[in-house]
Amino acid sequence: MSRYTRQYNEQACHMNKSAASPFRTAQQREVDRASKRDAVLLAAVRLFNERGFHATSLDDVAASLGVSKPLIYHYLGAKDQVLFECMRIGLQQLREAADEVARQPGTGMDRLKRFLRRYAECIMEDFSRCVIRTGDEILAPEIRPQFRALKSEIDQAMRKLIADAAADGSALVTDVKLTAFTFAGALSWTARWHEPGGPLQPAEIAEQMVEILTRGIEP
Amino acid sequence: MSRYTRQYNEQACHMNKSAASPFRTAQQREVDRASKRDAVLLAAVRLFNERGFHATSLDDVAASLGVSKPLIYHYLGAKDQVLFECMRIGLQQLREAADEVARQPGTGMDRLKRFLRRYAECIMEDFSRCVIRTGDEILAPEIRPQFRALKSEIDQAMRKLIADAAADGSALVTDVKLTAFTFAGALSWTARWHEPGGPLQPAEIAEQMVEILTRGIEP
Repeated sequence: MSRYTRQYNEQACHMNKSAASPFRTAQQREVDRASKRDAVLLAAVRLFNERGFHATSLDDVAASLGVSKPLIYHYLGAKDQVLFECMRIGLQQLREAADEVARQPGTGMDRLKRFLRRYAECIMEDFSRCVIRTGDEILAPEIRPQFRALKSEIDQAMRKLIADAAADGSALVTDVKLTAFTFAGALSWTARWHEPGGPLQPAEIAEQMVEILTRGIEP
Repeated sequence: MSRYTRQYNEQACHMNKSAASPFRTAQQREVDRASKRDAVLLAAVRLFNERGFHATSLDDVAASLGVSKPLIYHYLGAKDQVLFECMRIGLQQLREAADEVARQPGTGMDRLKRFLRRYAECIMEDFSRCVIRTGDEILAPEIRPQFRALKSEIDQAMRKLIADAAADGSALVTDVKLTAFTFAGALSWTARWHEPGGPLQPAEIAEQMVEILTRGIEP
């Protein structure tokens, strides 16, 4: 089966087996656009993490995907915008982890441990890793307040989990803010030293680090 | 007393009250050169920390001191070299902390705590702060191996202190390397959040963080 025939069949399938047409539906175009945008973001974030933001050009990102630079602009805009979008995704993943954990049963300490493990795992993945590897000062000044607001949400979520654990007696905490910075720092640092493919899996690293950190606030 | 007279008198004083001369001795010129070089480094590291390396030009550094850019070149060389020198000083301070602690009495855990506190305090000062705020990838490729070797010495020193505490039974450690990364990350992160002039002094922040971290490895 030729590539064209296969695409054509897939399209026909998407159209709920109604009359086959060589034209894609609005929905198919949207799915296609989203998947291309995702591919650009993943290629960009990996280069930003590896070489640093300033040493990466959109030409490099385009070349790594075998496409042209104007296509990147078409999907995402200028390099500042691409970086912000990568960091927004990274922060969104951390935010989702906090929201998910907040709904779970158990003691405050149980929820805190779950969040910290998930936090570390996120940081060892591409997008949240980029949040940590890139200093706020690199972002364009007009984007910075929005980025800091998103980051502050994660910090507040972590502080709330720590405060809740202290409140139900499952943790003993002197200073919630300083404890949050201690935990966030220890786990965020994986963005600087963790190399994928090392002897320990991210889940094992997360588990061991969270064990050391939370033993430090056991009652 | 005119500025010139005062300088002249100070020079005479430096010359051990021997015959006064309007020319400075080789030793005075060396002291003078070193203090100018230090002033340039301090101005540079503060701008790098505040604005980021790429957003800071040697013109900015020169302007902040009221001198010319060629003068900066004269004392230190190009911007890459200035950055490396700042980071070298920061790493040197951490290295001295490790060496000093290694000679002190007490258990392994006592020495480890002292080192961790001093490590955190260093990171909240200008030069070691720059080591953390600046990713290795920003350094010129030919300088990077030298920088990584210096950084690795600090990592090895921290691992040795942790291993010694485990060996004499004053700490309970599952994975020395992961414990070192956990501690270094938590303390290094102060370079990203600590603002001088906050309600807590660096020594208090260091003390509280080290308390949380080392409770996590108490036997």
